[in-house]
Amino acid sequence: MTVSAPSVGDRAAVDFASLLSTRASRMNASAIREILKITQQPDVISFAGGLPAPELFPLEDVRRAADTVLTKYGPSALQYSTTEGHLPLREWIANRAGITPGHVQIVTGSQQGLDLLGKILINEGDVVLVEAPTYLGALQSFQPYGPQYVEVPTDEHGIDTDALEGVLRANQAKFLYAIPNFQNPTGRTLSLERRRRLLELTAQYGVLVLEDDPYGKLRFTGEELPNLYELGLEMVGGDPDRNHVIYSSSFSKTLVPGLRDAWVQAAKPIIEKLVQAKQGADLHTPTLNQMIIAELVEDVLPRQIKTVKQAYGVRARDMVARIREFLPAEVEHTTPEGGMFLWMTLPGEIDTQPLLAQAVERKVAFVPGSPFYALGGGHNTMRLSYSSATPTQIETGIRALGETIRAAME
Amino acid sequence: MTVSAPSVGDRAAVDFASLLSTRASRMNASAIREILKITQQPDVISFAGGLPAPELFPLEDVRRAADTVLTKYGPSALQYSTTEGHLPLREWIANRAGITPGHVQIVTGSQQGLDLLGKILINEGDVVLVEAPTYLGALQSFQPYGPQYVEVPTDEHGIDTDALEGVLRANQAKFLYAIPNFQNPTGRTLSLERRRRLLELTAQYGVLVLEDDPYGKLRFTGEELPNLYELGLEMVGGDPDRNHVIYSSSFSKTLVPGLRDAWVQAAKPIIEKLVQAKQGADLHTPTLNQMIIAELVEDVLPRQIKTVKQAYGVRARDMVARIREFLPAEVEHTTPEGGMFLWMTLPGEIDTQPLLAQAVERKVAFVPGSPFYALGGGHNTMRLSYSSATPTQIETGIRALGETIRAAME
Repeated sequence: MTVSAPSVGDRAAVDFASLLSTRASRMNASAIREILKITQQPDVISFAGGLPAPELFPLEDVRRAADTVLTKYGPSALQYSTTEGHLPLREWIANRAGITPGHVQIVTGSQQGLDLLGKILINEGDVVLVEAPTYLGALQSFQPYGPQYVEVPTDEHGIDTDALEGVLRANQAKFLYAIPNFQNPTGRTLSLERRRRLLELTAQYGVLVLEDDPYGKLRFTGEELPNLYELGLEMVGGDPDRNHVIYSSSFSKTLVPGLRDAWVQAAKPIIEKLVQAKQGADLHTPTLNQMIIAELVEDVLPRQIKTVKQAYGVRARDMVARIREFLPAEVEHTTPEGGMFLWMTLPGEIDTQPLLAQAVERKVAFVPGSPFYALGGGHNTMRLSYSSATPTQIETGIRALGETIRAAME
Repeated sequence: MTVSAPSVGDRAAVDFASLLSTRASRMNASAIREILKITQQPDVISFAGGLPAPELFPLEDVRRAADTVLTKYGPSALQYSTTEGHLPLREWIANRAGITPGHVQIVTGSQQGLDLLGKILINEGDVVLVEAPTYLGALQSFQPYGPQYVEVPTDEHGIDTDALEGVLRANQAKFLYAIPNFQNPTGRTLSLERRRRLLELTAQYGVLVLEDDPYGKLRFTGEELPNLYELGLEMVGGDPDRNHVIYSSSFSKTLVPGLRDAWVQAAKPIIEKLVQAKQGADLHTPTLNQMIIAELVEDVLPRQIKTVKQAYGVRARDMVARIREFLPAEVEHTTPEGGMFLWMTLPGEIDTQPLLAQAVERKVAFVPGSPFYALGGGHNTMRLSYSSATPTQIETGIRALGETIRAAME
């Protein structure tokens, strides 16, 4: 092939758009991100974001831990480190899960774990099963790799496992992406019976399960349930290399998000590929940050989990009470047992996208539910976050939301 | 399609390998990483790694900066932050480059910049032009996206621009990946005349230039040359949105690598897509780390650059002197003007891969040059790093290397 070159004088502006990959054309600005821009007016009460409560951050503990690790490790705390992650942190995670550090990969936030798993698993056109609705950020991570999404219906107990069987029979799926605890966006929790059934079914059909569990430790009511990962391990006699569940969790919701420390637990063939993928993606998660987290996991983390779940429990109950007080009876809502979110379903004729503008006029904001559906739909749904709201904001905000919805219903 | 399910009792071990993407099959454990494992015996003098000198890290400044930003920003230093990056840091970078913060994306180490640029630019089969040899880590970042590499020959002044013209004519390339300053692995620097010619040619053929410049500030001898990015900006009258050079640099080699803070400068259509790619890849670079770096750029960074380049200059001159003293005259070596590496070419009959084992027996290690060639070759080359070596290590190590090479030549 010979490429003809225009003369130097002819040089036109570079057409950057024509040089982008087809993969890039699958990427879009996050719908939520655009929504958050609208809602970030100073006098608007926003239930739209999903920010952990900053006033609960263990700021002084982080300060002390940073100081401690700089003394304890010296320049090593600031040097390049291994791709797999800081060994004491991986050991702590592995010990709690009954696995080895070789089954644990530290990642730069759960989001990186989702991206790298998408990268090593998804071929263009592969079927990925997702809950309807599901976490928008996961869709954003998987999307560049060109999956074909198939939705699994959900109800108040999470994934409908009867429906799942039909979906598995009708599709040769690569993996099922699930958030069993206090799901983002719905706040729902998958029942124990369904957890077992989901694992049996996926194992039978040779479909991996990607369990995303950022909120699992933040249960403020009800009984703790075993993770899919734990149940999957049980099913194969405790052998992590035969567990078909890949587990992702994070220190973002229990300690702080800004250090970007999370991890993936999986069978060695998955972890080994993940290490290679991560090496190409960012070499390793920042050394200092991993050491800070490792310094906090023994004492600060358990205390912090107690504080956070107690606070979120109060806020969730408060928001649910105000919803019952101020919202039309036709509005359905979930009652979360943990986590940061609840979900509302409005009468069918209301579209929550235009409703948002009306709500912002009344100085309250939420996230319309539609972007959480991989295949669209959910136009009459919305997500509310209570994690960083004060009692006054909850009262005033839900009252204003009630007025907005009533006006729209008329 | 209907998928047949075996009965529950039939369940076999999960065949993870068969579930991996074809993209995953393009990833491999880094050759260097495997080599480093061999060379990490405690009594071996290793010139193999590419670690910045840890004894020069501004440990106390980082400690103070961490403390300062936790006070100054409070919980915001530990909260989620914007994908684009910490604005004061982007402003500082933009001001120095004569561009706007909208042309700057903060990334989690240069490696992430390379990965995300590969992700948004490379379609499977796209021609990517690379120097021969080139930085191995870049190949690792691009590789999963399935590029077709075409090598551009280099000599002691870097990329041979006469040869480049032929390469551009013969291939419809997407971008040229170049490290003009103190290249990894060779330590060579692209001459000013060739910089201009390279830009003219690539602009003529509509080929982007990805300039990787982690070492640019670490010049210890000779005259500073303008970056390709700066020259590219000049060519289009200072309009960053018409510059066909994408620039990547890092604080890893000038401040510390363990915080993983680097950046990309490019035209807005590239940055906008990069933001979307980064959002899916890790949401944002750790907040605290960006704030720490921003705290250090005014006072500590210039002082640190002086310290580091002075030290590396001494080490480089020392190593070159010992090479001339202890190595056979047949061995060719580069004489770097900055950075961390030099490159040696041995007589053609010597293969540096088996030579490494013989060198390790004599308690010295290097990296064989072959993995740095995208298309193979360079069997008689090696990379040596002087950045973290003491005078004694340099004397003893180069003497042992000389003995190893002489023994192999006999």
